[in-house]
Amino acid sequence: MFGVTILGNNSALPAYDRHPTSQVVTLNDQVFMIDCGEGTQMQLSKYKIRRSRINYIFISHLHGDHYFGLPGLITSLGLLGRENHLHIYAPEALKGIILPLLFAADAHLPYELVFHALKEEGVILDDERYSVECFAVTHRIECWGFIIREKKKPRKINKETITNYNIPATFYESLKDGQDYIAPNGDVIKNELVTIANTPGKSYAYCADTLYDEGLAQKVKNVTMLYHEATYLKDLEDKAVERFHSTSVQAGKIAALAHTKHLLIGHFSSKYESLDDFLTETKEVFPDTQLAIEGVTFFI
Amino acid sequence: MFGVTILGNNSALPAYDRHPTSQVVTLNDQVFMIDCGEGTQMQLSKYKIRRSRINYIFISHLHGDHYFGLPGLITSLGLLGRENHLHIYAPEALKGIILPLLFAADAHLPYELVFHALKEEGVILDDERYSVECFAVTHRIECWGFIIREKKKPRKINKETITNYNIPATFYESLKDGQDYIAPNGDVIKNELVTIANTPGKSYAYCADTLYDEGLAQKVKNVTMLYHEATYLKDLEDKAVERFHSTSVQAGKIAALAHTKHLLIGHFSSKYESLDDFLTETKEVFPDTQLAIEGVTFFI
Repeated sequence: MFGVTILGNNSALPAYDRHPTSQVVTLNDQVFMIDCGEGTQMQLSKYKIRRSRINYIFISHLHGDHYFGLPGLITSLGLLGRENHLHIYAPEALKGIILPLLFAADAHLPYELVFHALKEEGVILDDERYSVECFAVTHRIECWGFIIREKKKPRKINKETITNYNIPATFYESLKDGQDYIAPNGDVIKNELVTIANTPGKSYAYCADTLYDEGLAQKVKNVTMLYHEATYLKDLEDKAVERFHSTSVQAGKIAALAHTKHLLIGHFSSKYESLDDFLTETKEVFPDTQLAIEGVTFFI
Repeated sequence: MFGVTILGNNSALPAYDRHPTSQVVTLNDQVFMIDCGEGTQMQLSKYKIRRSRINYIFISHLHGDHYFGLPGLITSLGLLGRENHLHIYAPEALKGIILPLLFAADAHLPYELVFHALKEEGVILDDERYSVECFAVTHRIECWGFIIREKKKPRKINKETITNYNIPATFYESLKDGQDYIAPNGDVIKNELVTIANTPGKSYAYCADTLYDEGLAQKVKNVTMLYHEATYLKDLEDKAVERFHSTSVQAGKIAALAHTKHLLIGHFSSKYESLDDFLTETKEVFPDTQLAIEGVTFFI
């Protein structure tokens, strides 16, 4: 399972029951949160996402609609008795904002809060099964995008043939890496007899709040699914530039330039009650586009 | 019109679609906000309360469930183009928490944010038509309650008799103060001919989060309506003491000791899905009790 669930899809001013930005990306047993606007903890409850499974939170930038839900989430996790470390990747100033809030409340969290300051582009989290990278985007203040990449072994077990050989399950990981199996009697079982080529790992890129920037397409090149903000419809391109945001059409252009498979758009301005035109306009440039609707999980 | 509208009635952990604490008190053309838990700006939208009418916000204490909605509200008021000053009365540390958030966002509010530190009990706001007092309550950290008192002139115009006399409307305020009118020809119109005794001003006290404390009854003596927290049912009195909170029955006792007319209870623990027992238990001690239900306006 590799999917993204939308918790908030609106820009700064909440409107029409749309909430400020937050998403959770589920990759097998891991749940990553990206941004955490006000009300995110209530959205987690509403959509029945277990807070305890979130170990990593990525905050793109320090505009309130992307993190004002974080203090409440941190506090509630403490009240719920969380014990695992919670890792927060964010612009450096966040730590100095959050700690005084906890101090003023005389809060003693039963778990450790680990802040990681985003300083340069590259891999920020590297696991056997996934990696997370950050990249700079162009916004009014320091702002970061993220790419979550699934890592897959080059081979996977051929369930039809593996039962013909007496290979201990402890060796399966080595088989997935392409190794042959040598039995205790010296017989060699060639890897390709018991494995097949794996599909490549998928990837999800989150472009945060950004000005239209063709250089961005290079940074997210070939990701499976791209999330790009589309604050305004195409007729308000001037306003988008002025506010360091993008339009529907610009989001589609970046997806096309990046050769991504699927595009998800969000961060809609509270000017718009209906979102239909966002979909129509963006699809004209990039047909495989979907609206980031709250509560919906998009499979990557 | 003098009434309080409940925006959030739950304790720290949001549950069952109940929100953290916030209330707005409407007194004629003034709207005062008391506490501002996470999601308050969305609750204002939901219940169609005009944010622009709020000029004074009172924050009882710096536990997140009482003010984590404030940064979002402050920011949104800016985006909406507010120009009037916004006055915030709160424990002194709040200013040092809010300003760094605005700085990190490079936010330039189009209105002035005026912080007033709560330091001693007494009148903090004094107007011709109302006054607001603060008083200390006993909680785990510094915590304040508030009393909003309507001020009324001693007399009001007798609409049935006033038309018999030729008194200019500009003199009506003096009539309400009890003065006689002296006509240009020297005729004296005695005050009691054109006015009647006014009803006394009403008052609303908000007791914030507090341990059961009989001294509190003295501080809120004779208010028209008392809001007192009731985090737990009576069987959890030990837990209430341990956490510096009160029970249903304790809230009722304070109302009885204070000789208040009406009691409103709230700040319910997320342990409880149904609130029926809160009402039953409290009414046994103080019959004129109501549950602080979100979205409901209680007339004082």
